[in-house]
Amino acid sequence: MMRLKDIATALRAELVGDGELIVHAINHPAAAGPDDLALAMEAEALGALAESPARAAILPASSIVPSRLAGALHVEHPRYALATLTRLFAERPRLPAGIHPTAVIDPTAEIALPTAIGPFVQVGARAYIGPGATILGQVTVGAEARIGADALIYPGVRIGDRVRIGARVILHNNASLGADGFSFAIPEPGGRPPAGEPPISRIASLGTVVLGDDVEVGANSCIDRGTIEATTIGNGTKIDNLVMIGHNNKIGRSCLIAGRVGISGSCRIGDRVILAGGAGVADHVVIGDDPVILAAAQVGSSRIAPGAVVLGMPAVAKEKFFEQVRLQNRLKHLFADVAALKARLQPAGTEADGD
Amino acid sequence: MMRLKDIATALRAELVGDGELIVHAINHPAAAGPDDLALAMEAEALGALAESPARAAILPASSIVPSRLAGALHVEHPRYALATLTRLFAERPRLPAGIHPTAVIDPTAEIALPTAIGPFVQVGARAYIGPGATILGQVTVGAEARIGADALIYPGVRIGDRVRIGARVILHNNASLGADGFSFAIPEPGGRPPAGEPPISRIASLGTVVLGDDVEVGANSCIDRGTIEATTIGNGTKIDNLVMIGHNNKIGRSCLIAGRVGISGSCRIGDRVILAGGAGVADHVVIGDDPVILAAAQVGSSRIAPGAVVLGMPAVAKEKFFEQVRLQNRLKHLFADVAALKARLQPAGTEADGD
Amino acid sequence: MMRLKDIATALRAELVGDGELIVHAINHPAAAGPDDLALAMEAEALGALAESPARAAILPASSIVPSRLAGALHVEHPRYALATLTRLFAERPRLPAGIHPTAVIDPTAEIALPTAIGPFVQVGARAYIGPGATILGQVTVGAEARIGADALIYPGVRIGDRVRIGARVILHNNASLGADGFSFAIPEPGGRPPAGEPPISRIASLGTVVLGDDVEVGANSCIDRGTIEATTIGNGTKIDNLVMIGHNNKIGRSCLIAGRVGISGSCRIGDRVILAGGAGVADHVVIGDDPVILAAAQVGSSRIAPGAVVLGMPAVAKEKFFEQVRLQNRLKHLFADVAALKARLQPAGTEADGD
Repeated sequence: MMRLKDIATALRAELVGDGELIVHAINHPAAAGPDDLALAMEAEALGALAESPARAAILPASSIVPSRLAGALHVEHPRYALATLTRLFAERPRLPAGIHPTAVIDPTAEIALPTAIGPFVQVGARAYIGPGATILGQVTVGAEARIGADALIYPGVRIGDRVRIGARVILHNNASLGADGFSFAIPEPGGRPPAGEPPISRIASLGTVVLGDDVEVGANSCIDRGTIEATTIGNGTKIDNLVMIGHNNKIGRSCLIAGRVGISGSCRIGDRVILAGGAGVADHVVIGDDPVILAAAQVGSSRIAPGAVVLGMPAVAKEKFFEQVRLQNRLKHLFADVAALKARLQPAGTEADGD
Repeated sequence: MMRLKDIATALRAELVGDGELIVHAINHPAAAGPDDLALAMEAEALGALAESPARAAILPASSIVPSRLAGALHVEHPRYALATLTRLFAERPRLPAGIHPTAVIDPTAEIALPTAIGPFVQVGARAYIGPGATILGQVTVGAEARIGADALIYPGVRIGDRVRIGARVILHNNASLGADGFSFAIPEPGGRPPAGEPPISRIASLGTVVLGDDVEVGANSCIDRGTIEATTIGNGTKIDNLVMIGHNNKIGRSCLIAGRVGISGSCRIGDRVILAGGAGVADHVVIGDDPVILAAAQVGSSRIAPGAVVLGMPAVAKEKFFEQVRLQNRLKHLFADVAALKARLQPAGTEADGD
Repeated sequence: MMRLKDIATALRAELVGDGELIVHAINHPAAAGPDDLALAMEAEALGALAESPARAAILPASSIVPSRLAGALHVEHPRYALATLTRLFAERPRLPAGIHPTAVIDPTAEIALPTAIGPFVQVGARAYIGPGATILGQVTVGAEARIGADALIYPGVRIGDRVRIGARVILHNNASLGADGFSFAIPEPGGRPPAGEPPISRIASLGTVVLGDDVEVGANSCIDRGTIEATTIGNGTKIDNLVMIGHNNKIGRSCLIAGRVGISGSCRIGDRVILAGGAGVADHVVIGDDPVILAAAQVGSSRIAPGAVVLGMPAVAKEKFFEQVRLQNRLKHLFADVAALKARLQPAGTEADGD
């Protein structure tokens, strides 16, 4: 429940009308009640506003305020406004302060105050949990792991031994940090292992995982530990659900890694890289700053230009990808044209070439 | 253990021979013992029946019953018969009635009877669990979540605050319902955030997840909550393992969504849609009723015709996809033909064009 | 902490210099301290050795030992040496012997000694856990499941009823073994179910999952139970994170299955098969021994030759795939050539063909 003028301040938005108006929730105009703030920043929602009982709305800059509204806010950047607004109304999952009596905390672990540790949480020897962290139920924190201040860790997250996590990190349900890397010595394809060696010889993972500040890891995602050094994720990088980040990767700051992406191993990925859903990066690939790897693209080499937008398998510049699609769509005609040309140049009575 | 005539009734199958015969289990003819019912509905299995000690078998309609059998059932629709038959012999995971003493149930939660709640389950404030639900060990049920009657929830499932689940829903190991959507305000590619804003500004998820009746969600799959409204899954839709369903999606009834599919966010998907393994749908895509999106297809636009069968990246009609593959397989010949035509038309002595 | 000569023995490596030298850890030359063993088996690391304070190093066979080193080891097979070496220095996750008092063990379960079972583990009726197994916290072991000797099971793993697991198996965080297969009876596309049947009729999974010895399953991966028989994984097969292995698959020995791979169902896969990241196999496909299915390849038929290396969608031989890419890259020129040929043969004054 907030006053319209306080929302205006938080959003740095222009207030029109009654700033004392109290709104209880935010909602699409079609779903909003009279006490809701209607979100009408996009054309479709703006249209729905005419039928809405809402008495307050958020509108694009310089749009006309319907006279039926008691108050309105004008915003310049709808997505950023939505970000601020949703955070104003969001509720952090409720967990009472303190350590739940069912939690199993090693006596050598250090838990800074304030803390909120839920049921069935397990914290290993010499682990450290920073002040203000919230650890919901059924989380595992390994020996000597470190969790930064104000982290929010959802149920079922597994944090391996020695994993280090920055401040304000959010880890979603059942994410895995610090499983062993998928690393084996095997013979060359078709060859045999050296004498005395098994066909598949396991390379153990002595390294760890290090997450910077403000990193977010989605549900059921996995970040494996490095072989000798750490797998690292830079400050502010956000990772969606079901993402696989293999061992030894070094990923930069403020990247966005969408659902089902896979980054094989030993890659170096720059800052502000965007990887869309299902994209894949082969091992040992180096990617610079600012490219956008579009959905399902497969990056097999280190030749992505900084800031490039790529697509396809193998990934190429987006324009080239769609040019190829257009050419392929005309292939049938090209075959027909060539057949016609051949027929025309074919001396009468000779046999056609097979193709 | 069942009598053959009772199985015949359940399957609406024609019974031949001794209906009083007792069978203990169902099995492939090659693996069946004398007390098993041999599954011989397919040609390969029918062949193996000759060598089987089984005395009872299920056969395709109008096939000849080997004289060695004491009883047999004729069925019209083998897959539907298999469905009924496996359900007759399936054992629901065993869990004693009542609430396990280790479970942590908020006193304001409402648990309808009968109930079976396993070890280390956590149920939040004002949550509701319907009658006949079975919640196996280590499940998390968030505050104000609602679980319908007769739901079956496997270990490690995470159900977030306010998530609503219909009757007879089955949720498999470690599925995540109600993690936050992957939603951020970011600058245009190559641009900068507005003054005073961080490069990546988190959009919180105030919405929830709503699953209809008879929905099934596979192991380690994720369904994220909506930003403002709910992410919804219609009645009877079945979702396989490791599926990613992003925020704000509205998915229809009786869909089949196979393993590793990703549906980005804010999509509207009709009824009876089939998405095969690894398929992907970009955000804001609208898909009507009845299409089949084949394995690994990437749907980036809303132009899929109702009932279409599509394949490829970008997804096109299956026939077109395979036509393109055939044309591409002949490209080498086409290049050779064109080179030959050029050579023939090239006046002697001039230089060849580079390409 | 180890003596250099003991490491030499374990690696069957040639020792140069002081075998009594004690090393505390292994490290890249750039990160190594004076008590570390520097790993300089690759050219880049060998270069960094010049600046390293390390007094001992591992070098490729027959490379020159810098005079600054007190001791060195020469190895023939760097990856196999790394495997042995990392295992020498690896620490198995620490868990005290015995059964943690919070674990819930059914009285009919059989736990062989020695054992180490962590907090909040749940073991079902008549389950068997072999000697030397380590089961970290929050694991679920179903009724009648069997776990082999010396298995190592990480937190959050779900092992369903009747699942059987071999000796020395390693299961990583939150893996799911034995969820139900994704199997339904449905009408033909566009058709209707038989009279009296629902549109989607669930086929229950009566089978189980059987893992051979020395199998490894990555974090958040899923192996579903078979419909009637077992889904089986052969000895020594290693499976990475977020892998989906559907019901009824029979997978051979010593396979390597990388992250995000999906194997739909009812496939038969040979020995020593390599599936790279994100590859997919359609259902009922048969694959022989020794092929390499490269990243993101989609195998839709059983026509992969033994030992083949395939790529693309649909998967073809790697050489053919890259030839197709090269031809496609020249398509624009081909269209131009054909247009030029048509223009040249076009009698002056006639209209051009549309294409």
